[in-house]
Amino acid sequence: MSFRVGVVGATGYSGTIAARLVAQHPSLTLAFATSDAKKGASYAHLGIRAEGTLVANALAEARAEGCDAVVLATPAEVSLELAPRLRTRYPDLTICDLSGAFRLRPASLYERYYKLTHTSPGLLEAAFYGLPELFGAPPRGALVSSPGCYPTATLLALAPVASLVDEGAFHVDAKSGTTGAGRQAKEEHSFAEVDENLRAYKVHDHQHEPEINLHLARKTGVTPDVVFVPHLLPVRRGILVTAYARLKSGVAEDAVKKAYEAAYAGKRFVRFAPPGEVTLASVVGTNDAVLGWSVRGRSLVAFAAIDNLIKGAGGQGIQSLNLALGLAEDAGLDHLTRSAAG
Amino acid sequence: MSFRVGVVGATGYSGTIAARLVAQHPSLTLAFATSDAKKGASYAHLGIRAEGTLVANALAEARAEGCDAVVLATPAEVSLELAPRLRTRYPDLTICDLSGAFRLRPASLYERYYKLTHTSPGLLEAAFYGLPELFGAPPRGALVSSPGCYPTATLLALAPVASLVDEGAFHVDAKSGTTGAGRQAKEEHSFAEVDENLRAYKVHDHQHEPEINLHLARKTGVTPDVVFVPHLLPVRRGILVTAYARLKSGVAEDAVKKAYEAAYAGKRFVRFAPPGEVTLASVVGTNDAVLGWSVRGRSLVAFAAIDNLIKGAGGQGIQSLNLALGLAEDAGLDHLTRSAAG
Amino acid sequence: MSFRVGVVGATGYSGTIAARLVAQHPSLTLAFATSDAKKGASYAHLGIRAEGTLVANALAEARAEGCDAVVLATPAEVSLELAPRLRTRYPDLTICDLSGAFRLRPASLYERYYKLTHTSPGLLEAAFYGLPELFGAPPRGALVSSPGCYPTATLLALAPVASLVDEGAFHVDAKSGTTGAGRQAKEEHSFAEVDENLRAYKVHDHQHEPEINLHLARKTGVTPDVVFVPHLLPVRRGILVTAYARLKSGVAEDAVKKAYEAAYAGKRFVRFAPPGEVTLASVVGTNDAVLGWSVRGRSLVAFAAIDNLIKGAGGQGIQSLNLALGLAEDAGLDHLTRSAAG
Amino acid sequence: MSFRVGVVGATGYSGTIAARLVAQHPSLTLAFATSDAKKGASYAHLGIRAEGTLVANALAEARAEGCDAVVLATPAEVSLELAPRLRTRYPDLTICDLSGAFRLRPASLYERYYKLTHTSPGLLEAAFYGLPELFGAPPRGALVSSPGCYPTATLLALAPVASLVDEGAFHVDAKSGTTGAGRQAKEEHSFAEVDENLRAYKVHDHQHEPEINLHLARKTGVTPDVVFVPHLLPVRRGILVTAYARLKSGVAEDAVKKAYEAAYAGKRFVRFAPPGEVTLASVVGTNDAVLGWSVRGRSLVAFAAIDNLIKGAGGQGIQSLNLALGLAEDAGLDHLTRSAAG
Repeated sequence: MSFRVGVVGATGYSGTIAARLVAQHPSLTLAFATSDAKKGASYAHLGIRAEGTLVANALAEARAEGCDAVVLATPAEVSLELAPRLRTRYPDLTICDLSGAFRLRPASLYERYYKLTHTSPGLLEAAFYGLPELFGAPPRGALVSSPGCYPTATLLALAPVASLVDEGAFHVDAKSGTTGAGRQAKEEHSFAEVDENLRAYKVHDHQHEPEINLHLARKTGVTPDVVFVPHLLPVRRGILVTAYARLKSGVAEDAVKKAYEAAYAGKRFVRFAPPGEVTLASVVGTNDAVLGWSVRGRSLVAFAAIDNLIKGAGGQGIQSLNLALGLAEDAGLDHLTRSAAG
Repeated sequence: MSFRVGVVGATGYSGTIAARLVAQHPSLTLAFATSDAKKGASYAHLGIRAEGTLVANALAEARAEGCDAVVLATPAEVSLELAPRLRTRYPDLTICDLSGAFRLRPASLYERYYKLTHTSPGLLEAAFYGLPELFGAPPRGALVSSPGCYPTATLLALAPVASLVDEGAFHVDAKSGTTGAGRQAKEEHSFAEVDENLRAYKVHDHQHEPEINLHLARKTGVTPDVVFVPHLLPVRRGILVTAYARLKSGVAEDAVKKAYEAAYAGKRFVRFAPPGEVTLASVVGTNDAVLGWSVRGRSLVAFAAIDNLIKGAGGQGIQSLNLALGLAEDAGLDHLTRSAAG
Repeated sequence: MSFRVGVVGATGYSGTIAARLVAQHPSLTLAFATSDAKKGASYAHLGIRAEGTLVANALAEARAEGCDAVVLATPAEVSLELAPRLRTRYPDLTICDLSGAFRLRPASLYERYYKLTHTSPGLLEAAFYGLPELFGAPPRGALVSSPGCYPTATLLALAPVASLVDEGAFHVDAKSGTTGAGRQAKEEHSFAEVDENLRAYKVHDHQHEPEINLHLARKTGVTPDVVFVPHLLPVRRGILVTAYARLKSGVAEDAVKKAYEAAYAGKRFVRFAPPGEVTLASVVGTNDAVLGWSVRGRSLVAFAAIDNLIKGAGGQGIQSLNLALGLAEDAGLDHLTRSAAG
Repeated sequence: MSFRVGVVGATGYSGTIAARLVAQHPSLTLAFATSDAKKGASYAHLGIRAEGTLVANALAEARAEGCDAVVLATPAEVSLELAPRLRTRYPDLTICDLSGAFRLRPASLYERYYKLTHTSPGLLEAAFYGLPELFGAPPRGALVSSPGCYPTATLLALAPVASLVDEGAFHVDAKSGTTGAGRQAKEEHSFAEVDENLRAYKVHDHQHEPEINLHLARKTGVTPDVVFVPHLLPVRRGILVTAYARLKSGVAEDAVKKAYEAAYAGKRFVRFAPPGEVTLASVVGTNDAVLGWSVRGRSLVAFAAIDNLIKGAGGQGIQSLNLALGLAEDAGLDHLTRSAAG
């Protein structure tokens, strides 16, 4: 038995990952893959051995006929237009959107953070935030809004301990490889500008900050106060989050440890490691999140590392599809192992 | 008129920088340079055009005869032994120590952070902490204890605003290139392990944390509470510090701006830039510190970038020598410009 | 049906790859894995999910009892001692040696290139050079000498056209990522020395040069004259070989094309691409070799790219085991896809 | 006494270098600097401390009034238009063009290699190829055509030995950092595509190949046959050239050594080193060329390393201006030292 899955936007970094994972998946079949930039190119262009040809994005809606699920690896503006059309035409289709189009609430936040007017507030309200370790399995037929790469790492680090820290306040210092920004033809993302360099960006103004605060509140009941500052690393892949907080009076190290252990008992894709071993190299190439923490007095520093393109995008999307379709959570993801060096 | 300066440990990264800066300096002459690893090699090995030969470290004390100043670019254990001998034999010699041997107080902290017993508590007490922007010009004949690379960047970012933030509390997330650790023959510093990777180290346990707290208290009168977490970047040179704090109630953005401007008015080596332009590329190759900040409500995020080997080591040492010897603060440092790319 | 395979030296870069590939293989079982550096560590240390514990290298011989094959991911000196003992004790065992111990002939070359006296000239003579695209399937029970990473790439590029070029003469300019040198605790392989740098090494003196000449002669009947110069790249993985030659008078571009196509028709792991698309990024993470060429007049420039740890080491070893054991050539290797970015 | 020099195109990588070198030069004054992209920005944007403001490129001609020299750090099309206008209006002006506009002959080659029709064949004929180590000092008032970065390195390596090798034939394998391509907003130069990657480009089709052959013939009288293949390295700066040739029968290693020594005796910016020490790190940040060679039998492998933005562009331009204006060859260039690490 195999489910038919289409991937829209298959030549972006996240879309390529998603398409490959579908193509190699024991219970999924790649029904179609689209790309305006490379339409007509064979699947070999994606590193996929199966026969097939990329089609134009405009054909996505028609090709979704007979599919069980579709992954949208498209910019938010495109997802915002396509998801409602797919939902209307195929009420039972499971849709997994990797963009930010259905992550934030209220809809009015989209004006500020995405410079767009949200035209599907109903779908936004109904979307299932696809971070399975915190929010469980999406139902079949859902619109799964797959979390941003930064929120995935940050929420995994913060949720278990949010109720243990003063005022739900965290300073989150995040560092990401450049693929987090997608394929780029910008001078600021050129090798000569990024290599041997480091800088913060969108300080006090990144769209993932309200996404983190929203879903942290939903999960924990705490009213969080997360300050989030991302930095652009001279690496291709991987995110490391370092989160600082002050523990409530009387909270000891052991309580922190127990909180993490309770939160992730039995979770296939979460591992714990000492702070110095929460590294990009230990997760890149995998769907894993590695978490660590250190406590000294009331100072808590928590760490999380993920591959931004896998656990932070295409891999987590497949994880959500697996759950929505009733498959094993790690089906088609269990062969992913970290790179040899590191 | 030219002052004679010797450099002990001239083939380490910091020592090489110091030796070159002395050799190119319009008012300093490189009297001698030592290196056990490369004794007998010509100065050309250091990229210095002047004629000369590296001598063994054991000759440093004798060669200091007739010198005006000596730079110790040696491990803390070596400086701890050599500085007292130089001081005894040459009471007027200006000594600039780039190691940690004379930075911390009380002396008992050396047991924990440097795994050594401090044998010169008198010199430790008398040492002048050589961060000129905050502590001014050292007197001629001083033992200048040049600050660590992380403390230089961190103190420049924190000192002006320490009295404006709640409880003097900062979360300092620091990122450094690998030369900060000196020349290394360790697997963990091999290219294959560092490249495309990132990790924190010595969390809640780095020797620069008490150094920062000590001198921030001395400078500001505040009782600070700095949590400091360093990370190892896949770059060769440069430090970026991101510091998080909560402003005291009623402190507005303008007060922060004024505090920085007042602190560094007329300071040759400090520049301000928007947060996204506080980059490694803007400082590497120079003795500059670039600072930036962002305020939103009570959230303050401050940034500092320096070249760890210049402003964080050899360059700042020469800056201190300039001041101690009555030269222009930027003598021999004004030709340093950042690399073209970035 | 599953074959039992042990891996000796499983924490080196190549050994880790080999152990993972065995552990994930549908028809192989990881019978044991050894490492002196990490004995007692769980398989999780290798990124392997199966339960298991690394044992000391000294146990390798005993643990090979009941195994169908053993992979030696050990230094040449170790392989040279262990292979004969395994062969004697287990006459039917298939042994795949990833070191250089059984690649060169005559044995006397080992004095110069490996600084050792070859103590098993009989085994050396009997060893099967495991480059399946050129030398076919090794027999079950063979001692497979898996080629070096440079020779794998170079021979694949040169063999089809060696008879078409003047005097069998090639200038081979090879560039390798740092993992090619194995795990390193040397200053010259530290990040600070390798990053933003490039240099040649062992010019006119690399052990892979005679290996290339030997097996190129065996395969083609030509008496080759290959000058081989390797360079150390600031990347972790991947080899690019650029080979220059002068075509014999009258040999046209089409003859070159036909020679490559004939040589690799139906070969699962060889692909052709235009010269500018023969990149590290197109092969890293896979067992593929990508080849390209350009002809202008009598000038031929040929290109080959492989992942030094997979097609150049552990992956090719598994490919050889597959063939020796009668499995599909790509069993356990077909899920390997290149990294998303690039 | 100070000469007035203007820089056109001062925000490109080469132009920034040139402008800084002029601004810091003891005998030159930066008369003006232009940039359409950043017009109105202060010189601080270039890392220059002197007061000044970038003006639009269109003002270059007028601002050249009263200047002794002008550096054109502009694309070939722009130089091709501007140089004749400057020459006509200011017959005595020394013009140093860093582009390819005046390097190739006959003019008809520009159609193929630069996709433009050369409109100033007279100036092209009169231009002085500014590689001082091979062609000496340009006269004051000349149009100096500064060599490309690849030809600078290649010609320095090849010229001394061209008459010693069979048929003047060289295989030149060149590797360059990404700044060689100038500031880029192209996906193919994005960090994610360049990092951890390597590829050849313009194989058998690079404009520097005929430039090398032309000037090698002019210098040596040999009819050369240079095949030149450039590769894009994941580094920011630096070029390494590896050149392969077959020595004429009877030419021994010593003859090669003597040829290099004779060619560069007394040359300020040329150094010799063993092949493994001809590295990017030993030249980046300097105007130096480091050369090395290895001979085995009749096989010659020669190496050259330069900083593509300094010796390969802006620095060599200033070196030529120094000579044309009667200054010391290394005036304003002698403070450049290589980076500490490496």
